Amino acid sequence: MDIVKGNGPITGEQIAERLKLTRSTLRPDLAILTMAGFLDARPRVGYFYSGKKTSQAISDNIAQMVVKDFQSIPVVVEESMTVYDAICHMFLEDVGSLFVVDKQSLLSGVLSRKDFLRTSIGNQDLNKMPVHMIMTRMPNITYCMKEDTLIEVANKLMSRQIDSLPVVKERKDGLEVVGRITKTNITRAFLSLADDHDL
Amino acid sequence: MDIVKGNGPITGEQIAERLKLTRSTLRPDLAILTMAGFLDARPRVGYFYSGKKTSQAISDNIAQMVVKDFQSIPVVVEESMTVYDAICHMFLEDVGSLFVVDKQSLLSGVLSRKDFLRTSIGNQDLNKMPVHMIMTRMPNITYCMKEDTLIEVANKLMSRQIDSLPVVKERKDGLEVVGRITKTNITRAFLSLADDHDL
Repeated sequence: MDIVKGNGPITGEQIAERLKLTRSTLRPDLAILTMAGFLDARPRVGYFYSGKKTSQAISDNIAQMVVKDFQSIPVVVEESMTVYDAICHMFLEDVGSLFVVDKQSLLSGVLSRKDFLRTSIGNQDLNKMPVHMIMTRMPNITYCMKEDTLIEVANKLMSRQIDSLPVVKERKDGLEVVGRITKTNITRAFLSLADDHDL
Repeated sequence: MDIVKGNGPITGEQIAERLKLTRSTLRPDLAILTMAGFLDARPRVGYFYSGKKTSQAISDNIAQMVVKDFQSIPVVVEESMTVYDAICHMFLEDVGSLFVVDKQSLLSGVLSRKDFLRTSIGNQDLNKMPVHMIMTRMPNITYCMKEDTLIEVANKLMSRQIDSLPVVKERKDGLEVVGRITKTNITRAFLSLADDHDL
């Protein structure tokens, strides 16, 4: 591998010479390394290093993708904010969900575009209604921790049919919001897998 | 490989015996197959088939993921439908976007939750406004074809900052809507990668 990395493209014969082996002794090993994708071979050119990772490395890649490496900044509002102001805030921040915190700055609710849309077609005055009237509240909030894997998060997003999760840190008296993870972050992770492997 | 697949777990000695080779001749090959992730080895147990694919196979996997294998059914409305009815339709169908078609059933617009939310906090009568007043229209619609790769689609979703794309088929006089692809589909594809490789 080192010989090919440092000197590729290089023929089987040249590799054998360097290793003081016969070409035929080496052939099965080169065949396996090529099959496994470590090396590429071209007729009349020789072997060269493919730069590809092992299947193990790629699988590890997916399994090692954790929330903290892909999360976004959370956008947080207070329970007393009006629905109208919260919708404006959502547009200004250009996010699809807001997290609601209580006076101790602990997570108390989640608001999605869907929640706001449902409320706004009702016949209520959005300027008089505080967000705590319409938010999804604990213990019905699905959340995650920053060390969770993206696989766990993606599973939660799919099974609960939601678009985003607050990333939280446990405090003695509740949950502190430290991040936001969405299907957009998962899409970015999907693309990073493709980028890493030169597709 | 076939011996291990059919008989694993099997020791290096037993494999050598079957192949009429010495253990030491075989050792480097087994080491490479293990390194490459084709085989797993456990001390005192032997070699067994890992079921893992090569890096090439996994990369091919991502590159070969195409829209038609992951797309959802599109939800389509007419240009004359009122905004209020369209929002209700969106809730009934439980989708995040609607596609608008003209009288020839060709794509003429796209509506997102964000479009509806923006309109609904304005002071307009949603019951009197047709969707063609607020929709994103051609040529500003980003779309894809069913043979496009998920990588291309994911890139479009990220760069245009949108949540879904219509999947279309070209007709002489315009585009026919045949599917819908969203960040939810990409999230499902991400999970399928993890599933395929037993993480």
